[in-house]
Amino acid sequence: MSEIKALFFDVFGTVVDWRGSVARLGAAMADEIAAPADLDWAAFADAWRAEYQPAMAEVRAGRRPFARLDLLHRENLERILPRFGLDHVDEAARARMNLFWHRLDGWPDSVPGLTRLKRRFILATMSNGNTALMVDMAKHAGLPWDCILGAEPARHYKPDPETYLTGADWLDLPPSACLMVAAHNSDLAAARAHGLQTAFIARPREYGPGQSQDLAATEPWSYIADSMTDLADQLGCP
Amino acid sequence: MSEIKALFFDVFGTVVDWRGSVARLGAAMADEIAAPADLDWAAFADAWRAEYQPAMAEVRAGRRPFARLDLLHRENLERILPRFGLDHVDEAARARMNLFWHRLDGWPDSVPGLTRLKRRFILATMSNGNTALMVDMAKHAGLPWDCILGAEPARHYKPDPETYLTGADWLDLPPSACLMVAAHNSDLAAARAHGLQTAFIARPREYGPGQSQDLAATEPWSYIADSMTDLADQLGCP
Repeated sequence: MSEIKALFFDVFGTVVDWRGSVARLGAAMADEIAAPADLDWAAFADAWRAEYQPAMAEVRAGRRPFARLDLLHRENLERILPRFGLDHVDEAARARMNLFWHRLDGWPDSVPGLTRLKRRFILATMSNGNTALMVDMAKHAGLPWDCILGAEPARHYKPDPETYLTGADWLDLPPSACLMVAAHNSDLAAARAHGLQTAFIARPREYGPGQSQDLAATEPWSYIADSMTDLADQLGCP
Repeated sequence: MSEIKALFFDVFGTVVDWRGSVARLGAAMADEIAAPADLDWAAFADAWRAEYQPAMAEVRAGRRPFARLDLLHRENLERILPRFGLDHVDEAARARMNLFWHRLDGWPDSVPGLTRLKRRFILATMSNGNTALMVDMAKHAGLPWDCILGAEPARHYKPDPETYLTGADWLDLPPSACLMVAAHNSDLAAARAHGLQTAFIARPREYGPGQSQDLAATEPWSYIADSMTDLADQLGCP
């Protein structure tokens, strides 16, 4: 095994709580957009997120050229608004809602763990989120990235190999010197297939109390941790 | 004028002292590489840097495909070693010398000024240095970038317009919301031509005591400062 030089992070779910954050930001905007009184904002977050993989699948399959995630999120928002009685929301409010994804909060252990890991490793995002989204989120949530890599530099969405391999190439590292950190077994399987080392962090409430997938590691990944601070412990970062 | 959201930084000369750093790192390696006793390491740094623009000119002119700066630096090193009696230096030492550029020190005001500016603005590199070089340098010198932009994302070297415009595009900002910060009037002229705001920081010793160019602003740039902390003052960042 190569010595690890860089950590690549999945972000949505692994580092930040997209579901709780989108639900909270939606509820805070409810009066302003005259939302139905019984709107379930956690269900709204779930519905929005459910459109995520299908939208990227169009790009992965080559049926549409690469389009950054901010645009896909916006198209997906248009798709779900009618389902929640929000057809009447105006353009300015839709644009602001789309920026919910730029203001997601970290899990409580994320900043403490990343701060420790940063002293020893290069910390790079390896997310499907675009650069502007990642930069805004980092400033909002205090995420101490050294570098924003992922979908936009590669013009490919994970798990396409170009995403992981462009990241390693831009850091001038062999894939085996990069550790992919994710709460999703499928992301780690793709990273491992392209030569990266792997770390699973369990996030059993990412999808709420009824989560049924990714409750635990399904393969013997290089590291298996139950928080970012546990990963820092395992990697010897005090 | 748009409200400024992001600051784009030229790095070599504007943020870090490449000449003093390369000279110091060379001198520290002199015994190990059996350098001639009278080798002038400041002249060595100047000679290496003098090959910089001609090497990029080949890429800008389309005579060779985009190649990252680490490679150009290495080719330029091969070119100058014989001039300094260093033909005998072995491959491993040449590779280590090339990493001098990853370990440049900031000017004394750089980290204090950037730290203040970061509280209010997105700080991005807009350098011809490649991503690995910029990330290593940031960790070495404590430069608190939010994002590494510049030549590698654009696959163009400054002052090609793609460099500045790809940076603005990746941050999803109009060029007018981006402030290019540089110690070089030509860099600012190109940035202004493509719609960015401009800030000159005087670095009259970048090229040593005999510096004859860029001693002062040659045009009425948006901001003219004598240090990074002065720029923070002017931009209202306490």
